[in-house]
Amino acid sequence: MSFDTLQKKIWDLANPTVAGLDPRPEHVPPAILEKHLAAKGNTLAAAADAFYEFNCGLIDAFCDLVPAVKPQSAYYELLGWEGVRCLKQTADYAKAKGLYVIADVKRNDIGTTATAYSEAYLGTVTVGGTALAPFDFDAATVNAYLGSDGIVPFVETCVKYDKGIFALVKTSNKSSGELQDMTVSDGRTVYACVGELLEKFSGDTVSPLGYSCVGAVVGATYPAQLTELREKLSHTFFLVPGYGAQGGGAADVAGAFDEKGGGAVINSSRAIMCAWKQTGNGGADYQQAARDEVLRMRDALRSAVKGL
Amino acid sequence: MSFDTLQKKIWDLANPTVAGLDPRPEHVPPAILEKHLAAKGNTLAAAADAFYEFNCGLIDAFCDLVPAVKPQSAYYELLGWEGVRCLKQTADYAKAKGLYVIADVKRNDIGTTATAYSEAYLGTVTVGGTALAPFDFDAATVNAYLGSDGIVPFVETCVKYDKGIFALVKTSNKSSGELQDMTVSDGRTVYACVGELLEKFSGDTVSPLGYSCVGAVVGATYPAQLTELREKLSHTFFLVPGYGAQGGGAADVAGAFDEKGGGAVINSSRAIMCAWKQTGNGGADYQQAARDEVLRMRDALRSAVKGL
Repeated sequence: MSFDTLQKKIWDLANPTVAGLDPRPEHVPPAILEKHLAAKGNTLAAAADAFYEFNCGLIDAFCDLVPAVKPQSAYYELLGWEGVRCLKQTADYAKAKGLYVIADVKRNDIGTTATAYSEAYLGTVTVGGTALAPFDFDAATVNAYLGSDGIVPFVETCVKYDKGIFALVKTSNKSSGELQDMTVSDGRTVYACVGELLEKFSGDTVSPLGYSCVGAVVGATYPAQLTELREKLSHTFFLVPGYGAQGGGAADVAGAFDEKGGGAVINSSRAIMCAWKQTGNGGADYQQAARDEVLRMRDALRSAVKGL
Repeated sequence: MSFDTLQKKIWDLANPTVAGLDPRPEHVPPAILEKHLAAKGNTLAAAADAFYEFNCGLIDAFCDLVPAVKPQSAYYELLGWEGVRCLKQTADYAKAKGLYVIADVKRNDIGTTATAYSEAYLGTVTVGGTALAPFDFDAATVNAYLGSDGIVPFVETCVKYDKGIFALVKTSNKSSGELQDMTVSDGRTVYACVGELLEKFSGDTVSPLGYSCVGAVVGATYPAQLTELREKLSHTFFLVPGYGAQGGGAADVAGAFDEKGGGAVINSSRAIMCAWKQTGNGGADYQQAARDEVLRMRDALRSAVKGL
């Protein structure tokens, strides 16, 4: 679904939060993990089953409050193909609960290989004359280092299936500046060049609400750059990681939004998923703890973002 | 296994070819595909079974001639989790046949997420006290756009498990220059900056044969940059895509090698996998056709590369 769909969900709930689903065995409440290990032993399949139960419990806890979830693929791939099956099951469950689902996969390649990635996560593959959707996410993250050959195939798939991508522009980590902040010969930064390249490739896909199908990942930990890019990239929907555990707060991300309180979604993962570790109840209240954290974040964002 | 292991295999066979395993349904000989579709219908599982039979047949056909194979993950992910299972099965089969196996996944992320990717493809995850290897490839490709936060976790995993990574430096596609060739304020290109960053992070991992655990992807389609980078990055093992179907020839890649004929491996995918389409036998001779193409490529490289 396009970013218009995501934006409408955000306005309906007055909440621009995307809840990250980034499970590791140590993030899962012990009772859930132990139950599945008892059933299937110390196996990747058992851990994947535990992740799925935990994810469903989290989704149940906050699906009436947040517009979107974002599973980070690395944590599923860490359980091999059984983890990837859990990723697909999680996406299906979240969509059935009405959530917009972003695959945080940061895929990147060229030509027919980029097409294959885009079809895997956002489109279909034809097997013996039948079109099958391998994952069917609403949007996916990508890395634009390879240039337009790596982005155009994703744009084509987005147009065909009414989906979106978020390309890395200025990431939330400390060392993101090593390459992204370098100044090129015309005085622009590398991240600004990437942002402008993305607007160029997607200019003719602008939706009724004003967004192209190519969004940008811009970290909450760099508020000045967020504001700079918001001004330059008027048609670009922003996915903003780095809120919460990485150090970004509501005031830091306010610059990501336009005057209508639109155009951005803010991710928090560990602060929500691991909220149960703060309550001293050993995980028994993980759903209530996650819901309470979602409400805290929502209210902080409502206070900081004008027009929401 | 480290790049020393790969280099020794290359010298043993006097062949620096890595055979790409990038299947699509239309690349599989019709008899193999139809057999599996008849068994399991027009499903992702049936296509994955067909990929696996095709891959095993290819590996059998040339495992005494090439040192390494490189499955491109996109084509497996395009079949969902059942394709990812086929990727794992393919890697296991290739390793059992003595091949060095490179996961072409181009993964990238930061901190604990980068660690998760590195452990997924090159290391282990601990479930209930048991260390399990989800994929156990020998090496993987990565994208360095996020800077050292995205590379150091991979280096740590490489050191721990004696593995290697290849980071994208100068890719083989036409538009790679849009970002990679930009000149930064000190006169260097972006791709040269990335290359130098990689040598810096991995300097203390140099092996007996002289290679760090961080290799570089440099395209066969840019021979001048290959030669330039070979001179600058003395400890960096090169993975060179773009030979064959993408237009690079043996003379184009000669500059990737050092004076001992070492330090590089050259990938060809479609020219080998789809060689059967050139013989007019409808796929019945796909193994012989692939083997013949491997021999042609080996002999061309032997002629062009000094010291091999």
